[in-house]
Amino acid sequence: MECQDYGLTRNTERRNLNLNPLQRGGVLPTEARIAMYEFADGYSVCDYCAGRLDEISNPSIHNFLDDLANFINVDEVRTVHGAREGKFAVMHALCNPGDAIIIDGNAHYTTHLAAERCGLKMVEVPNTGHPDYEITPEKCSETLENAMDKGEDIKLILLTHVDGNYGNLTDAINIGKIANNAGIPIILNCAYSMGRMPIDAKALNVDFVLGSGHKSMAASGPIGVLGMKEEWTDTVLEKSSRHGVKEIEMLGCTSRGAPIATLMASLPFVVERVNHWTDEVQKTRDFVLKMEEIEGVKQIGLRPKQHDLVRFETPAFDKIAENHPRRGFFLYEELKKRKIVGLKRGQTKWFKCSVYGFSDAQIEYILNSFKEIAVKEVKKE
Amino acid sequence: MECQDYGLTRNTERRNLNLNPLQRGGVLPTEARIAMYEFADGYSVCDYCAGRLDEISNPSIHNFLDDLANFINVDEVRTVHGAREGKFAVMHALCNPGDAIIIDGNAHYTTHLAAERCGLKMVEVPNTGHPDYEITPEKCSETLENAMDKGEDIKLILLTHVDGNYGNLTDAINIGKIANNAGIPIILNCAYSMGRMPIDAKALNVDFVLGSGHKSMAASGPIGVLGMKEEWTDTVLEKSSRHGVKEIEMLGCTSRGAPIATLMASLPFVVERVNHWTDEVQKTRDFVLKMEEIEGVKQIGLRPKQHDLVRFETPAFDKIAENHPRRGFFLYEELKKRKIVGLKRGQTKWFKCSVYGFSDAQIEYILNSFKEIAVKEVKKE
Repeated sequence: MECQDYGLTRNTERRNLNLNPLQRGGVLPTEARIAMYEFADGYSVCDYCAGRLDEISNPSIHNFLDDLANFINVDEVRTVHGAREGKFAVMHALCNPGDAIIIDGNAHYTTHLAAERCGLKMVEVPNTGHPDYEITPEKCSETLENAMDKGEDIKLILLTHVDGNYGNLTDAINIGKIANNAGIPIILNCAYSMGRMPIDAKALNVDFVLGSGHKSMAASGPIGVLGMKEEWTDTVLEKSSRHGVKEIEMLGCTSRGAPIATLMASLPFVVERVNHWTDEVQKTRDFVLKMEEIEGVKQIGLRPKQHDLVRFETPAFDKIAENHPRRGFFLYEELKKRKIVGLKRGQTKWFKCSVYGFSDAQIEYILNSFKEIAVKEVKKE
Repeated sequence: MECQDYGLTRNTERRNLNLNPLQRGGVLPTEARIAMYEFADGYSVCDYCAGRLDEISNPSIHNFLDDLANFINVDEVRTVHGAREGKFAVMHALCNPGDAIIIDGNAHYTTHLAAERCGLKMVEVPNTGHPDYEITPEKCSETLENAMDKGEDIKLILLTHVDGNYGNLTDAINIGKIANNAGIPIILNCAYSMGRMPIDAKALNVDFVLGSGHKSMAASGPIGVLGMKEEWTDTVLEKSSRHGVKEIEMLGCTSRGAPIATLMASLPFVVERVNHWTDEVQKTRDFVLKMEEIEGVKQIGLRPKQHDLVRFETPAFDKIAENHPRRGFFLYEELKKRKIVGLKRGQTKWFKCSVYGFSDAQIEYILNSFKEIAVKEVKKE
């Protein structure tokens, strides 16, 4: 048989300024690209395996996991295939079909999928609606109490640390406290935070933390991080009755290849970069203020920003689209001409973006490009 | 914090002749190394996603999956994180905790783990024992009938196409027929066969086939292939009630990164290489005959070999180890001196190896090395 051409290049996204928040935290540093070269083949990390991925000493996955546990302050940590697979593993280990869990109203769709795959009932903490879409400890408390009043036996709480729609940072410390006081285990989904900002699971009062290597830890996908308190290891990392060293929820081993090598190689880089988080947040705040100088561009979600993921409502660009010969595509195309990518084609009413990791000069160039497009196209009218 | 040194090099295994059967089929061709370079960063294949990984057109995952489905002759195919994750997905979609399934006695440990994770009861088809360890259609039939006589409602059969202990190729056609006649869905675990030998799921009478990218499809791990007949798509690929395009058992998307790019880049290479399978088998048979010229070296498992994974019983080397100053380590060390790796350190009673993909000259060199070690060390005594 003859295979088709799959178009396996990524020049556009690699060589231009990519504003897609999904892509900003997953760019590999040089060390990780070297590790990828070394561990590209098949089961590359398994040469010296004695039965447990997490105990391999060459390359030293064992030491790496020690460092990783320290970095996020958990008692035990495993790599999983991504945050979603970690959610599923915890839900599957802790709950039975039909059980109820509390989730926040800004949860990623994979939280719903993981719960649905486990047959769980989801009780949702509503956000405060437009324009902040905030998840408050008060609403969490209220939702939990209401559910318990209705006789629901809540088995688990899942809180999204930073959501992917508004980039809101939730008050994990206080929501964690609510969960702790109710004696209900809580997972903090840090897919958008672990590896960007410092995470201290114990200080955040959570039982589990989930990270995403490809989203925020400068690793090649798919790989995630599942950290937990000691008290949950027996349940979540329960061993097979037939194969004594193998952990059931991990199906024995998880990330047996290049992604874990990149996550390992990137850890020192990531450990260092979270120290600059306040600078990144400041860069984002400045970016927002300057973007809002364009009339008809407004950041929504909590203000001031506490994360690099920004959602703008952009009636300014939507108005231009109405009369533009390229309609909604004009914004994407004008940006692309200027070597800026990462917005969805056709989107003008609103968009999400991030300048995480860009230099001041790059951010200025991006800002000027947006302004130029707004002015140029308005003038044309 | 200061990170430890994780020893992220793989020189020994990359630069020497690696006999580990687990590693032979996962070596990347140049095209896949280029794809890895292109798609190294984070969520690299997701730039143009409109909600479903399997429908992405740039890179063309959609066309790739079409080709892949043709290649293995299934109606529908998805990538998963590995064969084990595929087993779990099918078991989880088709069975309920407490259900019984039939598995073969040579099944990989991950079959047990996947079943255990689903809370399933495993009824095992015994192999014929030493020295062949064969799984016969007769025993399958008998095991199934006995289980049904005992009132077991068998929900699924899982057959290992080629097992990882003896490299036996099972009679999938006839065992598939038994399953079909009983009206029970059957999974064929092709982790050691898909990508090495031609697989035609329909001709093999199976409902599901599982492949492993890192084990046998020249891809970077972790990635697997789950192919199925049309009639199972509604169950196994059921969509979320909340997110209409997302498949529950896939948790939305599976291999969102470099591994799928390597699997795609390698497909034309793999499609071509399975045409040379009979040559590979012949090379293995010749290798076995010549290895058995060493007194005290005997291939076990079915004869003649129908797969490249070979298990040898080697009392010859074990005898040398008894009096050798390096004891059981001598074999590993003597081979390593000759730039041959992939056997477990300390193992002399028996070992598994494969010469898959090696040239005739390389195989001759490997054979001569084993013979030289046997003669040299016996002489010393």
